[in-house]
Amino acid sequence: MNLALEIAFSRQGLTSPNPAVGAVIVKNGSIIGKGGTGPAGTAHAEVRAIDDARASGADLSGAEMFVSLEPCCHYGKTPPCTEAIIKAGICRVNIAIADPNPRVSGKGIEALKNAGIEVFVMENFSRSAHDLIRGFEKLILHNRPFVISKSALTLDGRIATSAGDSKWISSEYSRFISHKLRAKVDALIVGKNTYESDNPSLNVRFADSGKEVFEYFSLEKFAFSGYDNFFLKELLTSDINDFKDPLRIVAGIPGLFHENSPLFKDDNYIIVANRDDLNRALKDGNNYLNKLNIETTEVLNQTETSLYILEMLGKRGALNVMLEGGAGLNSSFFSSGNMDQLMYFIAPKLSGNGISVLNNTGSEKMSEALKLYDVSSVLIKDDLLYNAYTKAFNTR
Amino acid sequence: MNLALEIAFSRQGLTSPNPAVGAVIVKNGSIIGKGGTGPAGTAHAEVRAIDDARASGADLSGAEMFVSLEPCCHYGKTPPCTEAIIKAGICRVNIAIADPNPRVSGKGIEALKNAGIEVFVMENFSRSAHDLIRGFEKLILHNRPFVISKSALTLDGRIATSAGDSKWISSEYSRFISHKLRAKVDALIVGKNTYESDNPSLNVRFADSGKEVFEYFSLEKFAFSGYDNFFLKELLTSDINDFKDPLRIVAGIPGLFHENSPLFKDDNYIIVANRDDLNRALKDGNNYLNKLNIETTEVLNQTETSLYILEMLGKRGALNVMLEGGAGLNSSFFSSGNMDQLMYFIAPKLSGNGISVLNNTGSEKMSEALKLYDVSSVLIKDDLLYNAYTKAFNTR
Repeated sequence: MNLALEIAFSRQGLTSPNPAVGAVIVKNGSIIGKGGTGPAGTAHAEVRAIDDARASGADLSGAEMFVSLEPCCHYGKTPPCTEAIIKAGICRVNIAIADPNPRVSGKGIEALKNAGIEVFVMENFSRSAHDLIRGFEKLILHNRPFVISKSALTLDGRIATSAGDSKWISSEYSRFISHKLRAKVDALIVGKNTYESDNPSLNVRFADSGKEVFEYFSLEKFAFSGYDNFFLKELLTSDINDFKDPLRIVAGIPGLFHENSPLFKDDNYIIVANRDDLNRALKDGNNYLNKLNIETTEVLNQTETSLYILEMLGKRGALNVMLEGGAGLNSSFFSSGNMDQLMYFIAPKLSGNGISVLNNTGSEKMSEALKLYDVSSVLIKDDLLYNAYTKAFNTR
Repeated sequence: MNLALEIAFSRQGLTSPNPAVGAVIVKNGSIIGKGGTGPAGTAHAEVRAIDDARASGADLSGAEMFVSLEPCCHYGKTPPCTEAIIKAGICRVNIAIADPNPRVSGKGIEALKNAGIEVFVMENFSRSAHDLIRGFEKLILHNRPFVISKSALTLDGRIATSAGDSKWISSEYSRFISHKLRAKVDALIVGKNTYESDNPSLNVRFADSGKEVFEYFSLEKFAFSGYDNFFLKELLTSDINDFKDPLRIVAGIPGLFHENSPLFKDDNYIIVANRDDLNRALKDGNNYLNKLNIETTEVLNQTETSLYILEMLGKRGALNVMLEGGAGLNSSFFSSGNMDQLMYFIAPKLSGNGISVLNNTGSEKMSEALKLYDVSSVLIKDDLLYNAYTKAFNTR
């Protein structure tokens, strides 16, 4: 099952709107097939594992399958996986977690059982499996992607000095993990101020990291504390060979545009802008805007914009999106109740003043602060990676 | 040596201006005596360990001593420890670390060697031993105590909401550790605003903690990450049976005084005030001030006040002091370059707005942020205790 989970992780970022799943087939104590979910519209993990076994000439009758998520039993773009499992003659299916959709949950298990297959839910792996499908669960239940708020901050909670300087807060080791994270999400979002100040590329760039970074991650035995987070462990320790650049979103019309912005170098981006703001910018003679991918909305404030973006991404089937700052963007998602996971790289330094990671939002009462659950932490060199969720595993 | 270090820790907070030291005497594989530094003017650890062995009738000739710090070789309020060791007939002395004072360092070792005693510095224990004498080192070298800045903050770096509400950020488990910390320092410092808003007692109160807190700390196997910090480990896991309440300092004249302030319940406190501020408050008819312990200064701003307090405490022989907030006090010590150790309890919550742990100080360049070293972290229930120093062990 651990291998099935590792395969599931390796497919994250490549399967939306389907969940990333891993499947392993075992017969007579040997692995005879394995597979992970393919891109949308292609075969799921179970079918790929069966195909993999068949390709090596294995006889599947009497074999056992380990799969990170309950197999589907409905016709979508592909036939149901339960059917393929039954046809293959597999006699036992071990599942890490049931489907998160209450209307579907258990039906795949039932279909297998009705066909005489033994089914076992391995609850020891449910937590790890859940860490990998949090995005799928959010999309299925709320029609919006799961929001990971990533920030690099000083120990005193600043993401930049009072002059806006933020280069660099965290180390190149932490930035390498940020690039790995980008490979695992379907979209990245920045606020217009971050576009203006940083002129970011928002792509997956492992080539930026020196040899010493790769060496560190291949050799380091990380000391994880707190909630045992499979996603986090895989993120730090596994190689990412297969990935694509996520969709890039800019929230709001930037007041200035950089020449040759890498963010606009191909069509894989959207600027989400208020219609009046856009018209005003066009009237000001900013003709460059005519060449850009801009989606206009009628919503007026940042909080409403955050909801608009999530609904737009939900319609596109995005499972996971990551906020890449700044404070205004973070605060708008915080205000609209749409932060699901916090990944803060806390650097060993004190800024003293500057821009806080969240600003001008929240309650006047400390008892009403947003509570975080399933806290884990790990030191990456001298940066502390703090990971937590706004919902606990056991209260989902 | 580990036992000697444990004894040294147990004496922290009770020995100033002397360093807290532990000594253990071993003969034929058995411990025959042990001792820790007594209150100022009484016997040091080495002499107490020798007396302990003699009290049980042991013959010390040919015995071996383990001591957490190089024995002294000068006459102070008590005769030199080297003399007692030589007289006792001890044949080998194992030392965890040399005296931090470069003018004294090595002279104790030399005196022992000159008497024909074998001396060995156990460098594997030097780091742990150093964690216990950082305060002594600071006082000896700079005539000022070592400053521990302790705060409870939300993940987004806030110590209170915008309305000033801070109850409670961290859990009762973290607050228990804060009380243990108080037992380990010679003085506690709060700003006048913290006096006004919190009316604190600033004493060591283990009785506030419920049975479940004691149970948790007696059973929990803590997962420490990063720098292997002996002080931190002992703080979390050892029982503190012998302690005294530290001196309580209020920086500045409060604008209002609470009736029956627990902070002023006995004479063990000082309000440090600018002379003009005091005269103004007296002129305003605040006669209550006449009954209080007030030390006046001519210094005019908070940063100068922080230096004044440290010099005053240095003259009193304080080794370690702890800042208990708020933001103004933290910032004044930060500005004057007098934060030595950061102990931040990071609670799993997001405030969104509020008061930052440091305010209106520091550089406009992130590259000039104050760097922290020897970072360790540990989860105490769901609060993360982050510990770091402004100087690294290996650059002292």
